[in-house]
Amino acid sequence: MDVIEINEKIAIVIGGAGFIGCNLICEIVKSYKEVYCIDNFSRGSSDYFDAVNCVDHVNIIECDASDVSDLSRAFGSIKLNAHQVEIWHLAANSDIPAGVDNINVDLNDTFLTTVSILEVMKSHHFKTLFFASSSAVYGDHGSNPLHETMGSLSPISNYGAMKLSSEAIICAAYEAFLNTAVIFRFPNVVGFPATHGVIYDFVKKLNASSSDLEVLGDGSQRKAYLHVSDLISAMLYIRDNDERKETPSIYNIGPVDDGIFVRDIAAIVVKAYGGNIKLNFGIGNRGWVGDVPKFVYSTDKLQKLGWKPLMSSTQAIVRAASEIVKQLT
Amino acid sequence: MDVIEINEKIAIVIGGAGFIGCNLICEIVKSYKEVYCIDNFSRGSSDYFDAVNCVDHVNIIECDASDVSDLSRAFGSIKLNAHQVEIWHLAANSDIPAGVDNINVDLNDTFLTTVSILEVMKSHHFKTLFFASSSAVYGDHGSNPLHETMGSLSPISNYGAMKLSSEAIICAAYEAFLNTAVIFRFPNVVGFPATHGVIYDFVKKLNASSSDLEVLGDGSQRKAYLHVSDLISAMLYIRDNDERKETPSIYNIGPVDDGIFVRDIAAIVVKAYGGNIKLNFGIGNRGWVGDVPKFVYSTDKLQKLGWKPLMSSTQAIVRAASEIVKQLT
Repeated sequence: MDVIEINEKIAIVIGGAGFIGCNLICEIVKSYKEVYCIDNFSRGSSDYFDAVNCVDHVNIIECDASDVSDLSRAFGSIKLNAHQVEIWHLAANSDIPAGVDNINVDLNDTFLTTVSILEVMKSHHFKTLFFASSSAVYGDHGSNPLHETMGSLSPISNYGAMKLSSEAIICAAYEAFLNTAVIFRFPNVVGFPATHGVIYDFVKKLNASSSDLEVLGDGSQRKAYLHVSDLISAMLYIRDNDERKETPSIYNIGPVDDGIFVRDIAAIVVKAYGGNIKLNFGIGNRGWVGDVPKFVYSTDKLQKLGWKPLMSSTQAIVRAASEIVKQLT
Repeated sequence: MDVIEINEKIAIVIGGAGFIGCNLICEIVKSYKEVYCIDNFSRGSSDYFDAVNCVDHVNIIECDASDVSDLSRAFGSIKLNAHQVEIWHLAANSDIPAGVDNINVDLNDTFLTTVSILEVMKSHHFKTLFFASSSAVYGDHGSNPLHETMGSLSPISNYGAMKLSSEAIICAAYEAFLNTAVIFRFPNVVGFPATHGVIYDFVKKLNASSSDLEVLGDGSQRKAYLHVSDLISAMLYIRDNDERKETPSIYNIGPVDDGIFVRDIAAIVVKAYGGNIKLNFGIGNRGWVGDVPKFVYSTDKLQKLGWKPLMSSTQAIVRAASEIVKQLT
């Protein structure tokens, strides 16, 4: 597929100082010629590279990717040939409820980053893009399995809408100037170092009061979870094995099971935390506006390509609960 | 569906001074209590209301809909109860090739108008939105019929991408606060007063040189065209007959035929123009980057709802060619 070997490539990971970004960087520094992390450090932290033991191998550039001139300056500071470069775009808002309250959060951080990145890629003649999208692009389809070719995408959060918008503008950029565009639709991802998410919230609550744990909704929401190590494995597998026949290539990434109920996550976290903790459930099956209560995520396409996760949703939660309790206590 | 009669409603048509907007306004002033036109007059013109004989019935407010404070001021200047209001959002870039060259054209005019309109609708408690989307959201699917539920939407122009992005953010707004959201996916629309499009371009070229007509591409592109009078008829039919069971309701609007070839359009325009004119064709079946060379537009859903156009693609072109020759010569 590609005439340039990985060890001659330069990866620029935008949003690289976040939870998934730092895990990706830690993995790819082993094989790429050079790896750059571009982040505005609004949610990410360079401490994460310490935490995952790769601070010595990554080149960190502080930059707001939604600002065309700032990003252009950052790209310009890297010595490279354009054909060596892969852009990995992981910059986004990660606080979905905050984005429901204020549209500007996802507009700026989830969408305008994409617009800006494409504009600067075009002017720098960078033609390879890997993009972190989300299962949130689908919206609420009940028990219909979500697969890559399904129609009526109807996101119910501004986050999901801005990920779908990013995919749309990447499609147009593929027509205009990109050579490679691969879109990963992430499930919920768990692991270390956690910055948000259900386990993170539970452990934070337990740190504040270790006798009770309040669960948003009645605990009957079911979601698929992938451990971050499996996610990175899938992204790199797709990078190496997808034949780039589509315009662009889109893959759901997730476990092969139907997910885990929130009440079971709560029980696993409580067990990892230890002590005598009472679980209190709320009402209804939707935690907050924009939350999809239950979805069945089809990963048939990725399985057909030959990839399988090492962990199920439940195994991922068990491992992440242990990691995050250790991280936060 | 609705407890408020049309003659008690206030329609605010954003982008109302454009080609389709002025035709819509001219039709609905007959039935609504009041009709307001909001436009920044960057492409629209208040002369159009003179041209369609309804300048005395429309309230015109000059305002940039992509500017939240400007739009909020405009909404605030209208005396109304929020439940009376229907927002008809037709504001967009209409020069697709310009938007391919510079992403900011469609970002600002086609997408950020939608974001701003939703933000100001939310703060003013306006809950009814009719939105002018486009067949351009689908991208190039060859001879597969384009229907509302098809997956893999893959727009190939920034215009199409920003229309799809607008649909996505409207979906999220429907989840959060809208009561009614109806999305019309327009085909190519022709008629008077033309501001752009294939007939407009041909007549302009003939005005400059009436001995030859140069056609972009080899003339084998085929597209469906609807006359603007049929388009307005369909929009109002959907307004009155759609049961609002979807979230939001989406309709392709178009003729019931497979369209007309560009070479036939050229011949019709030449005939309407008169004189002895030689047709010169280019190479390839794509006029410009972002142009979809051929598509089959399914309007089954709209036909099932009970609407049919009065004119075929060819009849629409014949009528519009006569109207536009008269307009421009």
